[in-house]
Amino acid sequence: MVRVLAVPGLPEVEPGLDLVASILEAVRAAGERLESGDVVVVTSKIVSKSEGRLVSLEDVTPSGFATAWATQFGKDPRHVEVVLGETRRIVRMDRGVLIAETHHGFICANAGVDGSNAGGQGRLVLLPLDSDASARGLREAFGRIAGVDVAVVISDTFGRAWRTGQTNIAIGCAGIASLRGYHGEIDPDGRTLYATSIAVVDQLAGAAELVMGKLDRVPVAIVRGYAYLRPEPDEPDPGVGPLIRQATFDMFR
Amino acid sequence: MVRVLAVPGLPEVEPGLDLVASILEAVRAAGERLESGDVVVVTSKIVSKSEGRLVSLEDVTPSGFATAWATQFGKDPRHVEVVLGETRRIVRMDRGVLIAETHHGFICANAGVDGSNAGGQGRLVLLPLDSDASARGLREAFGRIAGVDVAVVISDTFGRAWRTGQTNIAIGCAGIASLRGYHGEIDPDGRTLYATSIAVVDQLAGAAELVMGKLDRVPVAIVRGYAYLRPEPDEPDPGVGPLIRQATFDMFR
Repeated sequence: MVRVLAVPGLPEVEPGLDLVASILEAVRAAGERLESGDVVVVTSKIVSKSEGRLVSLEDVTPSGFATAWATQFGKDPRHVEVVLGETRRIVRMDRGVLIAETHHGFICANAGVDGSNAGGQGRLVLLPLDSDASARGLREAFGRIAGVDVAVVISDTFGRAWRTGQTNIAIGCAGIASLRGYHGEIDPDGRTLYATSIAVVDQLAGAAELVMGKLDRVPVAIVRGYAYLRPEPDEPDPGVGPLIRQATFDMFR
Repeated sequence: MVRVLAVPGLPEVEPGLDLVASILEAVRAAGERLESGDVVVVTSKIVSKSEGRLVSLEDVTPSGFATAWATQFGKDPRHVEVVLGETRRIVRMDRGVLIAETHHGFICANAGVDGSNAGGQGRLVLLPLDSDASARGLREAFGRIAGVDVAVVISDTFGRAWRTGQTNIAIGCAGIASLRGYHGEIDPDGRTLYATSIAVVDQLAGAAELVMGKLDRVPVAIVRGYAYLRPEPDEPDPGVGPLIRQATFDMFR
C-alpha cells in the first residue's frame, strides 16, 4: 500500500527560511515522523520563496516587445517582461497564451512565473534556478538534520498539450530515479515490452496534489510505501534531466 | 490521508468475464472490502479484454498505405492497419512513430492499440469503444452487486509532448468530476485564482500506477480517502469529456 500524507501547518515562507527545519516541525506537529524510504513532495512555490526567487513588479521595466504583447491581451507588461526573462525560447504565443521553454528545458505556460500565493500583491514567484540542485539540497538536509534517507520531489502545476486541466508534475528530484523503464523485460506472454518507461516522479507529484489543493496551504506531502528506484550510485544524481525530451526527438516543439 | 491499495490476483481476463465480480473477489482475497467513496482504478487493458476489444493479426488485411509505412520502419503492416482503423486523424507520422487522434478524441501513440499483455501472441488490444460508458457500467455494477457508491477511473499509459516517459492517465471515468476548478476562488493574498483547473482523474490514475507496475498483473487499484467532487447531479455524467481539449483551442494539434 502507498500512503499519501498531507503536511499542513507550515509558516508563511519568506526568503532565507530553513525549509527543512520547518517541514520537520510541521510533520512533528501533525503527529507523524519522517522515515527513510519516504518521498517528500514539496511545491516549487515554497522552494522558490525560500530561495528568494521573487520579483516585485515595481522593479521591472518592460521592453517594447513585452508591452506590445501585453497591451494586446490586457496583461501587465512588467509581468510579461519577467516571463520573457525566464524564457529560453517561445514555443507558442497565441490568443494571449505564452507557452515557453524555460532555461531548465521545461515547456509550460508563462515560463512558470506565477503571481498566486506569492505572499503579497505585485510580487511574482519564479521557478527555482536549478530545481534538481534545490531537491538535492533538501534531501541532504533531511539526512543531516533528521538522519533519514528520503527522496525529494519538487512539484509544479503544468498544463499539457491536447488535454484540458493541469496536473502536478516534477520539476526537480533527488535520491530517486525519475523514470522506471521496462525496456527489454518480458511480459507474461513472452512478449518483450520495449517501449515503456514510466515517469514515476510525475505520478508521485500528481498523487501528492490529491492531498494538497491549491488554497489549503498544504505545500508538502509525504508518499510512504512506494519502493522507488535509486539513481545510479556511482554517477551524479541526474534529477529530472532524463524527463526532458531533447528538441531533436520532439515532434511538438 | 489518501491510501492507494493494489488489487492483485485477478484471473486472466477473457471476453465476457464478469469484471466487477472478479474484482470484488480479488479485493476480498486481499483481505480488503470496497467502501463507498473509494475510487476504483481499472486499467483499460482488462476492460477492453472483458469487452472483447481484441483483434487477431491473422484476420487483418493491410491496405497499401499501411504496408508502405510499416515496411519503411520494420513494422507489421497488419498492426499498422489496425491502428489506422482506430484513428480519426493522424497528428504526427514521423520516424516510425504514429501519433493519432482516436475516435474518442484522445491523442496518443498508435491510437492506443497495444500488443503487450494481450493474452497471446498475434493478438492486439484496442481501447474500449466508449470508455466513459464502460466506467459507468462498472460503477453501476459495483453499486448493484456490492451496494457501494464508488467512482471508477479507467486508466491507460500515455506519452506526453515535450517530456520523456509515460504516465497513467484517465481515458474514462464515472461518478467523479474529472476536473477540479479553482476559477474565481480567492487565494490567501486576496488574489483570484482564475486559471487553475486540476485534472484529478489523471492524477488518480497516476497514483494507482504506483502500486500497479507493468509486469505485476495488478490491473486494479483502490484509492481511498480522496474526497472527490461528484458530477452535476441533474445532468448526464460527462466522464472524461471535459478533459478533451477541443481542436479549436489546441495549439499543438
